[in-house]
Amino acid sequence: MEIRNDLDGMTLALEWAAKGLYTTSPNPRIGCVIVRDGHVIGAGVTQAAGFDHAEIQALKDAQARGHDVRGATAYVTLEPCNHYGRTPPCSDALVRAGLGRVVAAMEDPNPLVAGQGLAKLAAAGIAVSSGVLAEAAHEMNIGFFSRMQRGLPWVRMKSAASLDGMTALHNGQSQWITGPEARADGHAWRARACAILTGIGTVKADDPQLNVRAVDTPRQPRRIVVDSKLDIDPKARVLEGGGTWIVAAVSDPEKEAALRAAGAEIIMLPNAAGKVDLPELMRELGRRQINELHVEAGGKLNGSLIREGCVDELLVYLAPVLLGDAQGMFALPALTDLSRKHTLKFHEVKQVGADLRILARFNPL
Amino acid sequence: MEIRNDLDGMTLALEWAAKGLYTTSPNPRIGCVIVRDGHVIGAGVTQAAGFDHAEIQALKDAQARGHDVRGATAYVTLEPCNHYGRTPPCSDALVRAGLGRVVAAMEDPNPLVAGQGLAKLAAAGIAVSSGVLAEAAHEMNIGFFSRMQRGLPWVRMKSAASLDGMTALHNGQSQWITGPEARADGHAWRARACAILTGIGTVKADDPQLNVRAVDTPRQPRRIVVDSKLDIDPKARVLEGGGTWIVAAVSDPEKEAALRAAGAEIIMLPNAAGKVDLPELMRELGRRQINELHVEAGGKLNGSLIREGCVDELLVYLAPVLLGDAQGMFALPALTDLSRKHTLKFHEVKQVGADLRILARFNPL
Repeated sequence: MEIRNDLDGMTLALEWAAKGLYTTSPNPRIGCVIVRDGHVIGAGVTQAAGFDHAEIQALKDAQARGHDVRGATAYVTLEPCNHYGRTPPCSDALVRAGLGRVVAAMEDPNPLVAGQGLAKLAAAGIAVSSGVLAEAAHEMNIGFFSRMQRGLPWVRMKSAASLDGMTALHNGQSQWITGPEARADGHAWRARACAILTGIGTVKADDPQLNVRAVDTPRQPRRIVVDSKLDIDPKARVLEGGGTWIVAAVSDPEKEAALRAAGAEIIMLPNAAGKVDLPELMRELGRRQINELHVEAGGKLNGSLIREGCVDELLVYLAPVLLGDAQGMFALPALTDLSRKHTLKFHEVKQVGADLRILARFNPL
Repeated sequence: MEIRNDLDGMTLALEWAAKGLYTTSPNPRIGCVIVRDGHVIGAGVTQAAGFDHAEIQALKDAQARGHDVRGATAYVTLEPCNHYGRTPPCSDALVRAGLGRVVAAMEDPNPLVAGQGLAKLAAAGIAVSSGVLAEAAHEMNIGFFSRMQRGLPWVRMKSAASLDGMTALHNGQSQWITGPEARADGHAWRARACAILTGIGTVKADDPQLNVRAVDTPRQPRRIVVDSKLDIDPKARVLEGGGTWIVAAVSDPEKEAALRAAGAEIIMLPNAAGKVDLPELMRELGRRQINELHVEAGGKLNGSLIREGCVDELLVYLAPVLLGDAQGMFALPALTDLSRKHTLKFHEVKQVGADLRILARFNPL
């Protein structure tokens, strides 16, 4: 592939970033491509947390292929880091390697970096620029940026419904309203999330595994169940393999012990009404380094999360069917005035199999 | 504009056909372009019923501009007619004019034409072909073809709803869920319909004019109200200007006289249950030369029409808002088994202003 300009270089760097979509959590997925005379001489993507960032991978790749990177241009989908985290600063490595130019898609919103990475490169005599395909780079790591800027995960709520907005019959039947392509697509969204959250109602009704099956991933997201009264059966499938977080509001040492024995962790977050404090849960998940939170819950928890302002984005699959009188997507109370409606903005619409996939956002980040 | 090939010629002919979108009822909207040596020497579109068809308009246009059409190629979006209707056969006119070649987008499904128009041209030594942009030509006149093939109008049901499928609050508030662009777009769909149908519930609740206002049109569609018991107020705005059809199931000479005095026509179509026989109404509207029927009704009549298999297409505007517990689009009874769901196929999705416009079809024509 010939790299004719910065757009070509950054497009390829974003393709490399996408290779880390399922794996880099809690780090952002970053791609880096090193180019000399229009030819790619090295490329890399962020490895799992604690291992190489994309820039280091790309430098190693160039070295392994016998290329001299001195004077070459590096395209990075985020400003190179300039701080010691789990790994040393990438800015130092780029200076040492003698790169001639570094192009970043955008500056790092992480207050620990925030322009300093590019500044250090510039101070070392490297030509720097940023702002190439910034929007695409931002979308790629919207959860990471959400956490850096707000201390909160980017909360994406998934629902699958009929064209008339129904997710299940009154008798509970809901398999399958949408088609196999939409279900596989839903698993790809699960796979990129740091965690998947559901409620005790769904666990009791469907006993879901809440893991990623329809797409190939070396990393399974964290599973989280909102379960105020610790009603979950320690044999529930969502607990299998351990590591599930149970978010509760009412202590019960005996139940807690049984759940811990099943490998779960209890997070006690009661609000004044004795229910789980959902906004506080979001802050806690931010502290626990959850970038993208994928919600797949029933209408009741969905409605509570929306009402309490915890949701950033709806991921709705609409099937070309009508169900009539049935269960809706979000249990929200009746309004008496249209001006009180919840307002979103359509972000993207796509046909997936026979269904439509709609992304709509409450607020831009 | 240079016409390099048949695709160019038919594309332009379809643009001419679109000029008749609001006016040709009950005739199909047909465009005709006459081309010689890559240059357009004449063009036309079907005039109002009883006046020129597109081919005659195009021949007259060429003559008016001083062009000789002998040996030229005519592109027509439907096979030229070969029968005496309100006007004489276009095939004769094309033969007399000495055209060298005639390309039709598709053959006429009207059993009175059905290939005979092209056959007559071929018999007169004119080169003929058909099947260029046939699908677009079919869409342009889907209502006309529906009536020719099934004796039924093409029934398009419009609804505007929130992303969670609600059209109005429980207190009736529904203005405005969708934005001004969607409302104007809805009027363009009204304008192309031969008739607009609503129910007595909507008339009582909203007292709509049920006419076209947001787009410019010289022709207003026929207005139809389903009103089993003749409950409509003779002063209702839908009756203003006369010509409205009231479809009823229970006679009441006094009410009928008052409505006739207001310029309305009563169509009495009771079924065994004493309600309006909706499938029979559709057949009656076919007999009355309604090609496209635009339905804008409340959930109850919408649900009845869907349940009785009278609807071909849903035109749904989805606003990026959530209303929660409110009134749904279609009053359809609860199902006990998902296999009984009403199944459609998404035909087209488009963003209109801040809203989505979804076309979904129950059955292809």
